[in-house]
Amino acid sequence: MNAEIITVGDELLIGQVVDTNSAWIGRELNKIGVEVMRIVSVRDLADEITGAVDTAMKRADVVLMTGGLGPTKDDITKQTLCRYFGTRLVFSEEVYRNVERLLKGRVAMNKLNRDQALVPEACTVINNRVGTASVSWFERDGKVLVSMPGVPQEMKTIMTEEIIPRLRKMFVSDLILHHTFLVRNYAESILAEYLSDWEDQLPENIKLAYLPKMGIIRLRLTARGRQGEGLEQRLDAECDKLRELLGSNIMGEGDAAAEGVLGDLLRSRGLTVATAESCTGGSVAARITSVPGSSDYFKGSVVAYANEVKLELLGVKEETLRAHGAVSEETVREMVAGVRRLMRTDCAIATSGIAGPGGGTADKPVGTIWIAAAVGDKICAMKQFSDRGREMNVERAGNNALLQLIGLIES
Amino acid sequence: MNAEIITVGDELLIGQVVDTNSAWIGRELNKIGVEVMRIVSVRDLADEITGAVDTAMKRADVVLMTGGLGPTKDDITKQTLCRYFGTRLVFSEEVYRNVERLLKGRVAMNKLNRDQALVPEACTVINNRVGTASVSWFERDGKVLVSMPGVPQEMKTIMTEEIIPRLRKMFVSDLILHHTFLVRNYAESILAEYLSDWEDQLPENIKLAYLPKMGIIRLRLTARGRQGEGLEQRLDAECDKLRELLGSNIMGEGDAAAEGVLGDLLRSRGLTVATAESCTGGSVAARITSVPGSSDYFKGSVVAYANEVKLELLGVKEETLRAHGAVSEETVREMVAGVRRLMRTDCAIATSGIAGPGGGTADKPVGTIWIAAAVGDKICAMKQFSDRGREMNVERAGNNALLQLIGLIES
Repeated sequence: MNAEIITVGDELLIGQVVDTNSAWIGRELNKIGVEVMRIVSVRDLADEITGAVDTAMKRADVVLMTGGLGPTKDDITKQTLCRYFGTRLVFSEEVYRNVERLLKGRVAMNKLNRDQALVPEACTVINNRVGTASVSWFERDGKVLVSMPGVPQEMKTIMTEEIIPRLRKMFVSDLILHHTFLVRNYAESILAEYLSDWEDQLPENIKLAYLPKMGIIRLRLTARGRQGEGLEQRLDAECDKLRELLGSNIMGEGDAAAEGVLGDLLRSRGLTVATAESCTGGSVAARITSVPGSSDYFKGSVVAYANEVKLELLGVKEETLRAHGAVSEETVREMVAGVRRLMRTDCAIATSGIAGPGGGTADKPVGTIWIAAAVGDKICAMKQFSDRGREMNVERAGNNALLQLIGLIES
Repeated sequence: MNAEIITVGDELLIGQVVDTNSAWIGRELNKIGVEVMRIVSVRDLADEITGAVDTAMKRADVVLMTGGLGPTKDDITKQTLCRYFGTRLVFSEEVYRNVERLLKGRVAMNKLNRDQALVPEACTVINNRVGTASVSWFERDGKVLVSMPGVPQEMKTIMTEEIIPRLRKMFVSDLILHHTFLVRNYAESILAEYLSDWEDQLPENIKLAYLPKMGIIRLRLTARGRQGEGLEQRLDAECDKLRELLGSNIMGEGDAAAEGVLGDLLRSRGLTVATAESCTGGSVAARITSVPGSSDYFKGSVVAYANEVKLELLGVKEETLRAHGAVSEETVREMVAGVRRLMRTDCAIATSGIAGPGGGTADKPVGTIWIAAAVGDKICAMKQFSDRGREMNVERAGNNALLQLIGLIES
């Protein structure tokens, strides 16, 4: 069984909004063994929507659409689907009551939100308990098309509570299993060469993919087959071989990012952590705390953008700032020791650099970022080079900081 | 002139990676008046790639592809394009030297990265100065297809330095102008009703779109026409009418997010800011510092995840925590006053809440987040309700905190 995703909205095509819905839907469909073959984003134009829907309905068993269901004039998905399926909009009392309930006490009923209760006659209407746009479930020749709102949290709620359970019931399909390894210390090409013998002997129904990102390579194994064919055992066996081949270069398994790997490590060793951040501006702390339950090991941070905060709160010496500047090995070492003392933690991370686009000098060009990690009194520091733009510089620094602390704890 | 984008990679379809390339490319093409009609993501399968390329070459003037150019076996875009364009891979001395230069001192040359120097014979090869995968520029019947690496920073560098200038030279096209307003205090349907008379009188070549996101609605006006037709003046005139209609409900213009609006406001008034964050974990500081030049007004933050940090650094009273708990109006008020004192800033933001999924109680369910803003001694606080998942709860709290401070400064 395979699926296609269609996301609708001018804002996606002009790049004002990144389509995060498709990735989320792809992930959820995979879990129930549905393979997404194609994602298409189209504008709020009837011909474009119809064209994409028609192609998808010919190719796929399931078509999931998001977007274009708002109350305003630019949203035309509902009307367009009516024409495609040869039906018309009718008033739904149930949807109307839902809209009323959601807007009660906040927004007055008017024509536009009353029109949210108009639904295609020839479909199953699924109420949206967290938003005013209802969901349309069409069936034709054993195929399914579902039109959902584009607001991510609404779409996620509906998918989880309504669509996934219905799809699971309706379609029998292959089992698809994934296992992912986070690998450090390798360039992609070197890793691929090292693993090529193993890769060549993989059974036909197990596939390998390389997903490199800023110093970490995700290796994803995908196994596909029928239930009861021992697929799980075969995948497990290949995972074991890979663990043997890569040893401690595997820094984590599963979908965890570096902050998840660090979290597991801190928890298993009973250690606590804090951060002192200049150029990363709190984003390392935000990444650490994005992991549920991180309050078990994360105590707090000082974002020290201004030098006076480095001096007063973190205890960086004036002499150090004068002699070496805020972006220096000496300063990040004092920052990391300072925040560990201040927050009374076992471990700490510190960053100080020039994120750009301004602020660079000949000596310290934009992209120069010093990073320190501490475990007890053991401190190590590294310098990150090369400018890839403010956002990437900060993200890379966060990655390097997390990797550095993970390495230092394990050493 | 119109374009289609094709992004290639299994990781996009199973949702392990969000396709951010397309939005970025869409934004850049729009700036030079190229309209993106469709974005398609396909798997690393020859038939899928060929199908998407063939359809796109029939519909669009320009086809921009990213992904599938890595050195490993799962990447097949180059080979597939060779078959589609009826050409073969040949060795490029120039690309080889580039690969050598990039890997020098870090990674040894092996067969896989040597193969990066194999390029399609019947295309213009553009060297990639920041990565080992070269760019292929194909032309056929006046149409262009460009195949670029999927690594975002490589693609961005190549697009900016090479592809955009070439496309601009090659194609004459309509002028497309955008102007965006950030509107607060309105539900989408109410705003649409309020603006409907104005919207109905818009000239045919000016289009309006609503992009609501967590309490802010972006209104985007798009004007399209030929150079020299006074398009700019007409768009300006409509923008003026909208400013008149919405007054101070417009909290910003352009592509700025709330953090950009706050930054402009702080700078123009000569004010400084700090944050004290519990449940938002540094993400508000990270958002404020994501704006280039934010060091002009942002001094620092205390992320106070542990209660002892709230007590010791921010001066929250033990009595307050005991009587009301960490998630309470009293606590965030003391936090915001405390961090303003500590960092000696004019303004401050504080957050404390239960981001979830764990930690909720009957009294304070998951999703309960208290937010305070301070300007001088003036403090206001608000409570955020409803649980939309950890990530969204934190993002919404950040948004509300920024909006609250903007409102307080303006009041």
